[in-house]
Amino acid sequence: MKPIATHIETHADEYLARLKHACAQPSISALNQGLDEMADMVSDMLHSLGFHVQIVPTDGAPVVLGRMAGTGERTLLLYNHYDVQPVDPLDEWITPPFKPDMREGNLYGRGTADNKGAIVSRACALEAYLAHRDTIPVNIVWVIEGEEETGSLHLGQFVAQHRDLLQDVYGCVWEAGGKNARDQYEIALGCKGLLYVELRARGASHDLHSALAATVISPVWRLLWALNSLKDADETIRIPGFYDAVRPISAAQRQVLADWDYPEEEARALYGLDTFLQGLSGDELKERLIFGPTCNVDGFHAGYGGPGSKTVLPCEASAKLDFRLVPDQTPATILALLRTHLDAQGFEDIEILADEGEHPSAGDPAHPFVQAAARTAQRLYGHVPACIPMMSGTGPVHVLCGQFGTPMVTAGVGYAGSMAHAPNEHIRIQDFIAGTQYIAALLDELGNTEP
Amino acid sequence: MKPIATHIETHADEYLARLKHACAQPSISALNQGLDEMADMVSDMLHSLGFHVQIVPTDGAPVVLGRMAGTGERTLLLYNHYDVQPVDPLDEWITPPFKPDMREGNLYGRGTADNKGAIVSRACALEAYLAHRDTIPVNIVWVIEGEEETGSLHLGQFVAQHRDLLQDVYGCVWEAGGKNARDQYEIALGCKGLLYVELRARGASHDLHSALAATVISPVWRLLWALNSLKDADETIRIPGFYDAVRPISAAQRQVLADWDYPEEEARALYGLDTFLQGLSGDELKERLIFGPTCNVDGFHAGYGGPGSKTVLPCEASAKLDFRLVPDQTPATILALLRTHLDAQGFEDIEILADEGEHPSAGDPAHPFVQAAARTAQRLYGHVPACIPMMSGTGPVHVLCGQFGTPMVTAGVGYAGSMAHAPNEHIRIQDFIAGTQYIAALLDELGNTEP
Repeated sequence: MKPIATHIETHADEYLARLKHACAQPSISALNQGLDEMADMVSDMLHSLGFHVQIVPTDGAPVVLGRMAGTGERTLLLYNHYDVQPVDPLDEWITPPFKPDMREGNLYGRGTADNKGAIVSRACALEAYLAHRDTIPVNIVWVIEGEEETGSLHLGQFVAQHRDLLQDVYGCVWEAGGKNARDQYEIALGCKGLLYVELRARGASHDLHSALAATVISPVWRLLWALNSLKDADETIRIPGFYDAVRPISAAQRQVLADWDYPEEEARALYGLDTFLQGLSGDELKERLIFGPTCNVDGFHAGYGGPGSKTVLPCEASAKLDFRLVPDQTPATILALLRTHLDAQGFEDIEILADEGEHPSAGDPAHPFVQAAARTAQRLYGHVPACIPMMSGTGPVHVLCGQFGTPMVTAGVGYAGSMAHAPNEHIRIQDFIAGTQYIAALLDELGNTEP
Repeated sequence: MKPIATHIETHADEYLARLKHACAQPSISALNQGLDEMADMVSDMLHSLGFHVQIVPTDGAPVVLGRMAGTGERTLLLYNHYDVQPVDPLDEWITPPFKPDMREGNLYGRGTADNKGAIVSRACALEAYLAHRDTIPVNIVWVIEGEEETGSLHLGQFVAQHRDLLQDVYGCVWEAGGKNARDQYEIALGCKGLLYVELRARGASHDLHSALAATVISPVWRLLWALNSLKDADETIRIPGFYDAVRPISAAQRQVLADWDYPEEEARALYGLDTFLQGLSGDELKERLIFGPTCNVDGFHAGYGGPGSKTVLPCEASAKLDFRLVPDQTPATILALLRTHLDAQGFEDIEILADEGEHPSAGDPAHPFVQAAARTAQRLYGHVPACIPMMSGTGPVHVLCGQFGTPMVTAGVGYAGSMAHAPNEHIRIQDFIAGTQYIAALLDELGNTEP
């Protein structure tokens, strides 16, 4: 393995130049911006490695599908996404989000961590591997979608058309992951689910002078009161039935949590917080992070937000919410409970405008594929990585892996301070190099593991 | 009076051209945009009429002060403001807010109704009056400020320097007013007060991935819960002590309300509402409109508001609120009660960032000046106008009139559908002409009234 690792180190500048090129192409799925161009760029990258590549159309963004035959029987699935989050608030970026900038050992730019860094890293790992070996020891199926940041709405379409490729997979390397705030490598084995909705309230037919608030309904108050009914100040979600399907945490899962050295102080400092929510710490904090469903307000907008004052009674108000779900909650069930709850509370006037959802999926630390990934990490990073049954975020694990019984492990090039989804997203160059070496080492490990 | 009224009709095109010129100059006090330019334009307008004009600096926008001597002992105060509201949402304007557009008998543009229409109308009334009479029958003091839409923060400074001009005034013609939704002329004799505040909540040091909502405090929820604590769904304001200073409605005031033919159905249709707040109608509706204090959310902004979805835990949230106050509530008292309430509810973390305030002031329909204004309106419009003790909106009545015991009457050129403070603000040309004739007729009426 040493020559491949060295090869990666000596070619790092070239690999980073490729990543800068990829991050310079905007590909914001929420705005339908640059997706076809990005799919073409990714397709070219896979093609030049020797993959058989298809750009598979869907009713949304196309999915890039790459296939490469290996010497063994096993098939390894790689999953990534070429879309990125929106960039606002733009004025908080030190350098422009789509002009990748290298400074102080970091590469800044939208997508560097989430998720173009991982795409380019994997491609470079395969290139380095094949520079020193004749073949790869596993078959590879690489799925790179373009709608992960908007809920992977059409990945199910792709999966339905390619079940034959997905139903007999040994294991999947998921798109994200990396170092925690104590610089320890972590592996997640699943994802929380998601229900994303927009709630909207309407009042008069147009904005009115706020003097009329004495006699005219305010959609801002209506929406405020409706949202208030969803969650108590003690963080309990008040939608009846919301917790009914939550599977109790097993003894094995509790043990994983107990063994997990979560870098509490470092994370707190990184987020700029005095305390975590409700003063949580220790096992309670870890349990909430991994197994706690949430109700978050991603945005609330109504009326005047400029400088100074404007006295206006707004004619509409809207809020975007995400619910993170845990096994066995489902987006459809929670959406129905939400509608029923709003109606029961007298909020029939609150519209639910958009919704998207993903099923939660939790993994098993004892699976041989997971064990192989953990051994590889231990060799490369020098410590036993924590194997977390679910990450606190969401991805289409259920549709791509969970429904087929495929185990997954995360492997990315970010760290806890990467500012994913926020201004000044970046990766550390050392993590990019190590993450690339990890993928190459994992290929060898899978080749050496008894089938 | 007939020749003056005819003069105004025959010169209407010229007068409207002057109004278009005035409305083409942006003068948004909330953005500190174009105020000096607008003060100069107004000053020139008064100067050309023969006024002695001063542009009086303050710590904010300058106040234009015009004085003209008349034949009688009495002094008439005219009050207007040359600033306008912000124009957003800009995309809802059919024609640009600062390119006044005449169509279908209306003049569209920011400021046409509130309040440049009234300024130009008064100037034209004086010009027409002096074209047919040698002198005016009263002394005139004309105060035109530039911060009415942001709470007249520095008008008090001006007043303190010019108490001699303001303490012996017979009556004041206030800036706004006009026709109600049943096309009846209405006169208001006072204003509600105002407390305007911005509340802000902060969380992490930067926006975070919304997966972290499981363990990181959300400033959006904090602000939501804090606002929810201010007002119940039954519209009762829950700040302890909020209603303590509210003066009971007198029998005379109740009689005014009972006599007032409020155009309930027309107003409802105009605002595009199925019902008024809580299904109010009749005397209850009128009482709430005129004598009810309010707590309105002018704006609430946090997190992502663009198209599609973004999963983010915002790091701050802010809301702008206005409280309309009635005698004898004061802005300072309500601000103190608000802070005490938030602290008592555990919302010490919610900052109150900005505040401005005005005292409420209610007038007496029996005052001879009010009676003269009402007689003039009755002659011009053919019906007895309602004389409402307070308008539901706010202005600096207390600082300019109330504290000196000066009675006031409103007189403007708008109507109920003028969309003041909203997109597509406009006036009807017929109202502009009649409003101009009204001011000229009022001068004659004040000359004929026994001192």
